[in-house]
Amino acid sequence: MASPGTRERILDTTAELFRRYGYTGTGLKQIVAAANAPFGSVYHHFPGGKEQLGAEVIRRSGQMYEELVTTVMDAAPDAQTGLRDCFRGAAAVLVETDYADACPIETVALEVASTNETLRLATAEVFAGWTQAAVTRFGRAGVPQDRANDLALSVIALLEGAFVLARAAKSVYPLEAAGEAAVALLDRARV
Amino acid sequence: MASPGTRERILDTTAELFRRYGYTGTGLKQIVAAANAPFGSVYHHFPGGKEQLGAEVIRRSGQMYEELVTTVMDAAPDAQTGLRDCFRGAAAVLVETDYADACPIETVALEVASTNETLRLATAEVFAGWTQAAVTRFGRAGVPQDRANDLALSVIALLEGAFVLARAAKSVYPLEAAGEAAVALLDRARV
Repeated sequence: MASPGTRERILDTTAELFRRYGYTGTGLKQIVAAANAPFGSVYHHFPGGKEQLGAEVIRRSGQMYEELVTTVMDAAPDAQTGLRDCFRGAAAVLVETDYADACPIETVALEVASTNETLRLATAEVFAGWTQAAVTRFGRAGVPQDRANDLALSVIALLEGAFVLARAAKSVYPLEAAGEAAVALLDRARV
Repeated sequence: MASPGTRERILDTTAELFRRYGYTGTGLKQIVAAANAPFGSVYHHFPGGKEQLGAEVIRRSGQMYEELVTTVMDAAPDAQTGLRDCFRGAAAVLVETDYADACPIETVALEVASTNETLRLATAEVFAGWTQAAVTRFGRAGVPQDRANDLALSVIALLEGAFVLARAAKSVYPLEAAGEAAVALLDRARV
């Protein structure tokens, strides 16, 4: 029924629709139309329907975003520059996409937090993975172990919160301010 | 058609439903049922339908939340304690409501950012109002004028971002870490 690329195309398309319209605002009909896939292919590849597709998109988007951030951090000469580059890169993507593409799972995370336990757990898993990745990286940058977890949570909170303010205002300024705050918190934690 | 209290009841109920289910996930039928109001009363009080009701709820919730934060800050002996109390108070409300009641407009802000310009502008207005209120208060606490705006944006971003992490993980720990980060940024800005 489905060509080899259909599953991937459905996942990519759904991820993009989630970023713009959220989980509730994205319908299966919209997904198959945008993915140029037959309607039955969604249930063929995702027998659990929208929920299963949603959970896979959350985990996959989370993994891809973590890899992107890791690549940006690895390319920087030090952790401060790397952090700043992440916030600036996020700002550039926002501008390029007319403020649609921010964190790939944030809108969905808020929508499902009190309504869908399967999907809430998927978002929690992604955020925990990001936190662990940041803890490891901050540790390598000289942050003592007992401070690295709080720093990681604060930096991720700054990014996620700045996305909300930036998308609402259609301005990247909140991301610039939050990026500098993140660097300041990193400097402070290393002392 | 509607008793004098119906309009207020619809607004209160809608605000609560938005916090839990978001804008897209809240239907007019659900609103009138939860508000115990006749269906026609929504269009009687809000001729613009869900969008007008949504815009009023966003502005009203934003105003109420600003007043709540102001009350907590005013009750504290200093700005640091006030900030800490705000993050702790937010954590207490999250626990009491099984992680449903966080920022009253955050989910909606993300849902409408790329889909409804009228509602996006309402959320932008609320965040701008909060930022201005925080700038004024931080100024009074000894933060130089040229640092107060960035600090305000960063503190609001920390709170909004921590709400996402806390609701996803069903843990108030991100709010504790973000609250301490906010206090550290305030201390640093006053130097």
